[in-house]
Amino acid sequence: MSVTFKSIKFSTLVLLLQVAFIIIIGIFGDYQPNENYPKLHNISDDGSWEETPQASYPNFQDVNAMIFVGFGFLMTFLKSYGFGAVGLNLMVSAICVQWAAIVRGFIHNDIIGGEKFHITVVDMVTYDFATATVLISFGAVLGKVSPVQLVIMGIFEVLLAQINEYIGIDLLHVRDIGESMFIHTFGAYFGLAVARVLYTPDVEKSNKEGSVYHSDIFAMIGTVFLWIYWPSFNGGFADDQQQRDRAYLNTFLSLCACTAVTFAISSLVDKEGRLNMVHVQNSTLAGGVAVGASAQMPMHPFGAMIFGCVAGLISVLGYRFLTPLMRKYMKIHDTCGVNNLHGMPGLLAAIGAAVLAGISGSWSEHDRRAIFPETFDGDSGVEGALGRTPVEQGGYQFLVVVITFFFAIAGGTFTGFILKLPIWNQPKDNKIFNDSDNWEVPEHSVPEPELFNMYKVSNSHSTPMEVEEKLLQNTFTIKE
Amino acid sequence: MSVTFKSIKFSTLVLLLQVAFIIIIGIFGDYQPNENYPKLHNISDDGSWEETPQASYPNFQDVNAMIFVGFGFLMTFLKSYGFGAVGLNLMVSAICVQWAAIVRGFIHNDIIGGEKFHITVVDMVTYDFATATVLISFGAVLGKVSPVQLVIMGIFEVLLAQINEYIGIDLLHVRDIGESMFIHTFGAYFGLAVARVLYTPDVEKSNKEGSVYHSDIFAMIGTVFLWIYWPSFNGGFADDQQQRDRAYLNTFLSLCACTAVTFAISSLVDKEGRLNMVHVQNSTLAGGVAVGASAQMPMHPFGAMIFGCVAGLISVLGYRFLTPLMRKYMKIHDTCGVNNLHGMPGLLAAIGAAVLAGISGSWSEHDRRAIFPETFDGDSGVEGALGRTPVEQGGYQFLVVVITFFFAIAGGTFTGFILKLPIWNQPKDNKIFNDSDNWEVPEHSVPEPELFNMYKVSNSHSTPMEVEEKLLQNTFTIKE
Amino acid sequence: MSVTFKSIKFSTLVLLLQVAFIIIIGIFGDYQPNENYPKLHNISDDGSWEETPQASYPNFQDVNAMIFVGFGFLMTFLKSYGFGAVGLNLMVSAICVQWAAIVRGFIHNDIIGGEKFHITVVDMVTYDFATATVLISFGAVLGKVSPVQLVIMGIFEVLLAQINEYIGIDLLHVRDIGESMFIHTFGAYFGLAVARVLYTPDVEKSNKEGSVYHSDIFAMIGTVFLWIYWPSFNGGFADDQQQRDRAYLNTFLSLCACTAVTFAISSLVDKEGRLNMVHVQNSTLAGGVAVGASAQMPMHPFGAMIFGCVAGLISVLGYRFLTPLMRKYMKIHDTCGVNNLHGMPGLLAAIGAAVLAGISGSWSEHDRRAIFPETFDGDSGVEGALGRTPVEQGGYQFLVVVITFFFAIAGGTFTGFILKLPIWNQPKDNKIFNDSDNWEVPEHSVPEPELFNMYKVSNSHSTPMEVEEKLLQNTFTIKE
Repeated sequence: MSVTFKSIKFSTLVLLLQVAFIIIIGIFGDYQPNENYPKLHNISDDGSWEETPQASYPNFQDVNAMIFVGFGFLMTFLKSYGFGAVGLNLMVSAICVQWAAIVRGFIHNDIIGGEKFHITVVDMVTYDFATATVLISFGAVLGKVSPVQLVIMGIFEVLLAQINEYIGIDLLHVRDIGESMFIHTFGAYFGLAVARVLYTPDVEKSNKEGSVYHSDIFAMIGTVFLWIYWPSFNGGFADDQQQRDRAYLNTFLSLCACTAVTFAISSLVDKEGRLNMVHVQNSTLAGGVAVGASAQMPMHPFGAMIFGCVAGLISVLGYRFLTPLMRKYMKIHDTCGVNNLHGMPGLLAAIGAAVLAGISGSWSEHDRRAIFPETFDGDSGVEGALGRTPVEQGGYQFLVVVITFFFAIAGGTFTGFILKLPIWNQPKDNKIFNDSDNWEVPEHSVPEPELFNMYKVSNSHSTPMEVEEKLLQNTFTIKE
Repeated sequence: MSVTFKSIKFSTLVLLLQVAFIIIIGIFGDYQPNENYPKLHNISDDGSWEETPQASYPNFQDVNAMIFVGFGFLMTFLKSYGFGAVGLNLMVSAICVQWAAIVRGFIHNDIIGGEKFHITVVDMVTYDFATATVLISFGAVLGKVSPVQLVIMGIFEVLLAQINEYIGIDLLHVRDIGESMFIHTFGAYFGLAVARVLYTPDVEKSNKEGSVYHSDIFAMIGTVFLWIYWPSFNGGFADDQQQRDRAYLNTFLSLCACTAVTFAISSLVDKEGRLNMVHVQNSTLAGGVAVGASAQMPMHPFGAMIFGCVAGLISVLGYRFLTPLMRKYMKIHDTCGVNNLHGMPGLLAAIGAAVLAGISGSWSEHDRRAIFPETFDGDSGVEGALGRTPVEQGGYQFLVVVITFFFAIAGGTFTGFILKLPIWNQPKDNKIFNDSDNWEVPEHSVPEPELFNMYKVSNSHSTPMEVEEKLLQNTFTIKE
Repeated sequence: MSVTFKSIKFSTLVLLLQVAFIIIIGIFGDYQPNENYPKLHNISDDGSWEETPQASYPNFQDVNAMIFVGFGFLMTFLKSYGFGAVGLNLMVSAICVQWAAIVRGFIHNDIIGGEKFHITVVDMVTYDFATATVLISFGAVLGKVSPVQLVIMGIFEVLLAQINEYIGIDLLHVRDIGESMFIHTFGAYFGLAVARVLYTPDVEKSNKEGSVYHSDIFAMIGTVFLWIYWPSFNGGFADDQQQRDRAYLNTFLSLCACTAVTFAISSLVDKEGRLNMVHVQNSTLAGGVAVGASAQMPMHPFGAMIFGCVAGLISVLGYRFLTPLMRKYMKIHDTCGVNNLHGMPGLLAAIGAAVLAGISGSWSEHDRRAIFPETFDGDSGVEGALGRTPVEQGGYQFLVVVITFFFAIAGGTFTGFILKLPIWNQPKDNKIFNDSDNWEVPEHSVPEPELFNMYKVSNSHSTPMEVEEKLLQNTFTIKE
């Protein structure tokens, strides 16, 4: 009966949200109007054509693959939470995309003035970006929240993250091309704050944490798709072709260097010198995060590779040493280790971008004008000039990551307390990390380790009848 | 010995077809000629460049991924038919692509007049589209037909579906940008008719229907790739940039709304409030079908979301209530539930497009001229003007879906009776839904549930020796 | 303790390489300079825009998916080497991409003259191409080399393969658009030579060779992604739109024909007429290799289909008959059968291209000028004219594949002897084809067949206690 209540809460919330989305978008949103609709490619006088939506559709597709394939499969590593990983990832993304359209529409348009916000193909990418923030936080609470909690978290987080982004980009005028601050850092610390508030000792008791052989390979589907499309994530919003190419190159090189270092360190920190799939699945991607705040900047190829090396190093060390400590002493249980993939590499990216801004006075004027127009005098005629010095711009960059960090933690804590209300069916005991709490799981489908354990039970030199009894008991235990 | 005959039938048919394809394409087909070969991008006076093949290659790649990755993996959900799903999907697609080149070449060109038909990159997309029709029908008969039956079905269906499309588009002048009528509706009801004719009570006896935990996750690979590339499917053939962008947007929004509703309803219709992977794998995609006949039309974003909601609703309800009834009372066994993913959402799409055509008089002239030029007076100078009223155009749209529906059922029934000839090695008994009928399956590879069942056998308080006996018997049963 | 040494060797080598890459690229490499940076699209007078990096980014993405998704998952077919397949594929690729940037930078630029080599988006594709060579060789030694051996092999092979390509393209002026000679033929025979040198009888004793049901499905992820993106691999470097379109078309048609033939022959060569997943996973792709040296040439669509048919035929026959013979009589153990997917089809491609060059005198002047300018008189004003006859050009094409074949074998043999030094921790006995040699494998994760075997042990009418004993022993055997 409580099961039914649980279902009604979830279904009612989702349906109400969906109806509300339709009404709000019906009233306040629309396509771009017919007049002056962008040509396929507006060829400007100098022969460039990028500023039209068409140019962005392939970019959207790459980012879309990261959201629905990449994040979805990356989280299937848990042995008994594969449905939840790829399934709930799809659900919460579908909801957050629509909600992001509304939130971004209201923030970036003069709704009160009677203007409708326009939904374009370029905007579709920004909705996916907003959704990525939530998926990162999902990684921190994976297997520990109910579907209804996940939806509520997504609604709050999209709103708060977009406000934070508005402060950083529109008010404080900082650069974050791949949104390593606004997405990765925010999503990670928001999620960790939620995880902290929702922490229960039950997490330690579940026997469902951990992977099996094939779930680790499923997760690699997510890893490789995130890996190959990450340059598109960091480069899609570049202002011109040169910056875009640099973003592609820097991201690719950073990922390569990060991957090499991840493997080397993964083997070094294991007592028996073995490689660890958790590192391979996650830390290899930290190079994409680390270069994300500055991917279009003239850091030279070797600079991108250094970013990648440092990211791989801190990510693997984080998984090996920091995550267990945070779990033990801070009661922060980080299911996917988002602090190591998104949190610390995001901070590295932000600090790196601040330093690069600080030294941007040494760049060619061409580059500085294109990337940090704020550092030009107001009367220089440069669009966006604010008369800041490069070091001041670096200070603003640093200020924004500090704001982001604390805003994320405050927002995550607030959201966590709402989610902690005892009405949202947070999973307990053996239902943690366990699909059977929310999914119709194939009747006799039992992950391999259970079978293996059954065998082990029978290996204790008991009488044959006792063995049978134990098998019987185990069967029932598993079927629950 | 019959095995050898079976193999010879299959191999001979495929090799004969392949040789025939080479000869026919050798005589009647060729590349576009050198003269006036399209430039990379013909920049027209207004700066657009889309009408060249190059623009279509990325679109082809997206559709190609849907055909070979999307459909292939979506059907791997059966516990013991994964090789057949992704393997036979590859085989029948490779054959149908070539056959579609020939069929479309003959239909759309003056072969008798001595013209060769040209095979271009744009055409490659249409071959994939033609193939999609067959793959939808494959979903209805998955696991119940032999490879040779599948090939024969593909040959007939490509031919009939292309004739139907020719009647609808070339003779009756209707719009169906994402081919929800010509592909989804046709493929679904063709397949269901075949399934009805081939029905045997053996289907009910097989213990191989159903999924295991990891086969459900494999199927999600198909789902997410279909989901992310569906906008390309619906938008690829738009006539201009504005229509294309609207097709992308409408499809994306419809999919998002459909996904949210699918999850909500899936939980509601389960007695214990759980989510169901069948719905998540399939119904989440119904929004792409539902908007496919009108994706480029100015239905407003909220209109697309409503299409998606209705599609998700009827799809889940169809899986929950209609599919079992069709199986029980109509002897239509629909393995993948194509009626719920392609059939009913396809009809919804067609009726929606008819209604939109009927009210297209209220659109801007710009839009109506671009989408329904038929509704302009013959002397208006509009290309394609036929002097129809909007309501008449709606009537034609409706007429075509009626024709499609009955043509599909008639064609499927006819094809079904050919396939029913007792010479095509239709699988029986335990060979239904079972790869071991056609594939060399790894020797000791046994899906988990079998092992689990072995345990259950041993849980009946029998004597130890009896347990052993039962295990022994089970082993042999499985090895068969 | 030796384990620790093993880890230190691997980690030290990788870290040293990474530091060296950063230093070398820091000193010798950089982005393209600001001056004259390519516009988004340089619209030339005739309205084309392809020669800018932007045009290549989508092509890079397709190739990148082949490298990291395609090759990575194709090799997951082994039941206990999935981590090694997709994981080490990622590692060695990340290293080889960077190394290829350096090697190609030094070969193709005047470093001594003080010029820096430029790393562009177009170049990123060439780094992926260079890496593909190594991944093909990886297929020949999959599961039989340690990570450190794999890295060393990659370093030598990239260098030698790039020298070979330089001889063929820059010195001897032959065409190989999809690099069927320089990548596929070279990679296959280099890998086979390494496999021959490293051969130990332990390979025959491992009980880990072979697949399980789900590992075969994982491998199909690789197959379908290689299959759908292969046209991009063969067409990406075409010089103009017409050649590019032909490359796409020919590759697609060749793959379709090859796939049909693969299924037909696979069933024919099995005693019981069943299909074989090894053939479906690999031989279906041979059509892409076979047409790779001549994909842009006017071979007519039926010509491409014939290439595909022959490739499918020799590939399946190779797997069925040649691979076991090579293993038995030549002590060449070819884990993935690269001789059948890359080796023989690569030779077919090369010979086909030589023949096509020989008859290029019968082509239109337009085509011959675009593809074989070498066959024009030096005073004809054709750029690249060398005054060769078509038959001479064919001779050069043939010469280059002979050089490639022997260079690959010599280089592989040399590299093999270096790898054979007893300090590189080559896996032995049961560690062959076994992830647990190098990876932290989930504790109780045991592939299904082991469980199955446990059952079989218990099926021998022994006393119940003996059954228990056997189970116990098996458990320990597995845990080792």
